Amino acid sequence: MTSHEFYMGLALQNAAAMKGQTDPNPLVGSVIVNNNRIVGVGTHLKAGEPHAEIHALRMAGDAAKGGTIYVTLEPCSHHGRTGPCAEAIVNAGLKKVVIATLDPNPIVAGNGVKILENAGIEVVTGIREQESIQLNEVFNKFIVTKKPFVTLKAGSTLDGKVATRTLNSKWITSEESRLDVHQLRHENMAIMVGINTVIEDDPSLTARIPNGKNPIRVILDSTLRIPLESKVVTDQEAETWVFTSKNYNKEQKRLLEEQGVTVFVTNNDNSVDPNEVVEILGEKSVSSLFIEGGGNIHASFLENQLVDKVVLYFAPKLVGGKDAPTFLEGTGFELMKDAVELLDTNIERIGKDFKFTGYPSY
Amino acid sequence: MTSHEFYMGLALQNAAAMKGQTDPNPLVGSVIVNNNRIVGVGTHLKAGEPHAEIHALRMAGDAAKGGTIYVTLEPCSHHGRTGPCAEAIVNAGLKKVVIATLDPNPIVAGNGVKILENAGIEVVTGIREQESIQLNEVFNKFIVTKKPFVTLKAGSTLDGKVATRTLNSKWITSEESRLDVHQLRHENMAIMVGINTVIEDDPSLTARIPNGKNPIRVILDSTLRIPLESKVVTDQEAETWVFTSKNYNKEQKRLLEEQGVTVFVTNNDNSVDPNEVVEILGEKSVSSLFIEGGGNIHASFLENQLVDKVVLYFAPKLVGGKDAPTFLEGTGFELMKDAVELLDTNIERIGKDFKFTGYPSY
Repeated sequence: MTSHEFYMGLALQNAAAMKGQTDPNPLVGSVIVNNNRIVGVGTHLKAGEPHAEIHALRMAGDAAKGGTIYVTLEPCSHHGRTGPCAEAIVNAGLKKVVIATLDPNPIVAGNGVKILENAGIEVVTGIREQESIQLNEVFNKFIVTKKPFVTLKAGSTLDGKVATRTLNSKWITSEESRLDVHQLRHENMAIMVGINTVIEDDPSLTARIPNGKNPIRVILDSTLRIPLESKVVTDQEAETWVFTSKNYNKEQKRLLEEQGVTVFVTNNDNSVDPNEVVEILGEKSVSSLFIEGGGNIHASFLENQLVDKVVLYFAPKLVGGKDAPTFLEGTGFELMKDAVELLDTNIERIGKDFKFTGYPSY
Repeated sequence: MTSHEFYMGLALQNAAAMKGQTDPNPLVGSVIVNNNRIVGVGTHLKAGEPHAEIHALRMAGDAAKGGTIYVTLEPCSHHGRTGPCAEAIVNAGLKKVVIATLDPNPIVAGNGVKILENAGIEVVTGIREQESIQLNEVFNKFIVTKKPFVTLKAGSTLDGKVATRTLNSKWITSEESRLDVHQLRHENMAIMVGINTVIEDDPSLTARIPNGKNPIRVILDSTLRIPLESKVVTDQEAETWVFTSKNYNKEQKRLLEEQGVTVFVTNNDNSVDPNEVVEILGEKSVSSLFIEGGGNIHASFLENQLVDKVVLYFAPKLVGGKDAPTFLEGTGFELMKDAVELLDTNIERIGKDFKFTGYPSY
């Protein structure tokens, strides 16, 4: 490992620790080194608060002068809620800036580097770039498309089943996997299920880990069958947004709204178009959506090419059953060559289970 | 790593390299060490030929005297096709014997160790024991039960599908996975599929790797629908055994036998009982059976608790489809808590795919 990689590693660790608390801003970490000593460490904590570089510069004080600053994302060039970090770096007298990756935000995108280079500062980019990009996969998509980064999650047996033929499903995965799911709920701005899940399981869809931040609960319910006594309607633990079709039950809408539920009436007559849901969520500044649906919702989002990431928890069990539901149903593709391939795959043990992640290539 | 583990490791490597060529004997390797130098290495090559210890003693010659012999399986105590190895070790003047695991063969089972200890030789057991047991998982089962060790194999998408809803299945897994399957065919004495696989795919079921040893082809076919022109009937690449029910087509049986196919008529009227198949194969000295069936054959063998090991190749793809077949069908278990749990699980990358192995705990 080069020293560039070492110092960028510390900056990445500080950035990653803030997962779930910087929305809608990216995760960014920074380290300042002078005379072979770390003189400042910073990380972006919360939107509206100083960027990582500013915290690191404040910690370093005069020791920043003549030093090298490592930052996981290109320093900003715009006057947003805080001043441009590129200018602050110039003013502090840094000699060198090492950047993991350029900012995909169209209002920065290379302008930060220009300010630095125009001031005669040496700029190195691309150090541990892939790690920084993956860390901000949500931000990177949202800042460019204004649509949420969509993660499809499922927990199944090795043969892909999410329940037996009698629809018995408790429990498939281990407690360790379920805790990991709560961590992902914490990291996402919204969580989505279908109306059948609400009716059958009455889930609360909250992030039940210490200091868990509950996501907005998004329910797809084309006729507003959602029970008024269900937890997502009554428990007040988080916002609940119900997406319905034109053919909704008007009295039920009024009753839901009385309880504080937000109801979105979408444009189709009898179904909810997943494309429209994603569009509306984006307009409402929801940058990340975690789908814990059944096999039909999963299939509809995947077939519409709306899924950005797939997270699967496999329990080392076999349950069988031609009629037992799998985590991906719908009609499916007609030919095997048309199956959606997943790239950048990873698999790791989690308790007794295996956690798989991958990114669909459409 | 202790030196015991180091030398036993070399013995295990030599044993493992003979996979598929020692049936019905176990895989065994041996190393002789004297004055901190390896003076002999041996491995069992083929039933009827010398055991591993004898090869190692021959290589060592006089240098064996006063040395330590490492052997992955307890030296034999019986006069079989070769003399008892325990006596040969005594006669060669070894001082110490290090054994990975005792021989499960009821006619040895501790008797080898007794001969050695009675001769005043120090015996150490249990060095890298699990590795040796796993290496001979086939032998360990067969020598005790006289029934084949059964491996269930499937290659599927991540959502468990073995074909699309239109039954299109070419190709799911990568070439690397398919080569690995041919290696497993080489290592097994018999391979099994159902009649539908023969009719739909006309497979040859051979081990298409350099020096591949073809397994006996076992076809389950309750009425003898097998086409006379199918490859397993005509190609003469390996023996073909067809298991049928009492309700078989008599003229077809005669025609199959004329072509050299062996037909077993089992005791049920309209179906073939998997328990009976396994019993008959055991009687015919088939120690290992590799099932490459469809989801129904897999379910029937698993529900009858006949599967000893599960090998799954997962391609990083999602295909979906409520009606797309999975690798485990049948009726399946009614409750999730009754699902078959797999123990000693392992997962590894193979090409783009993931190879999972585990052992059912019934």
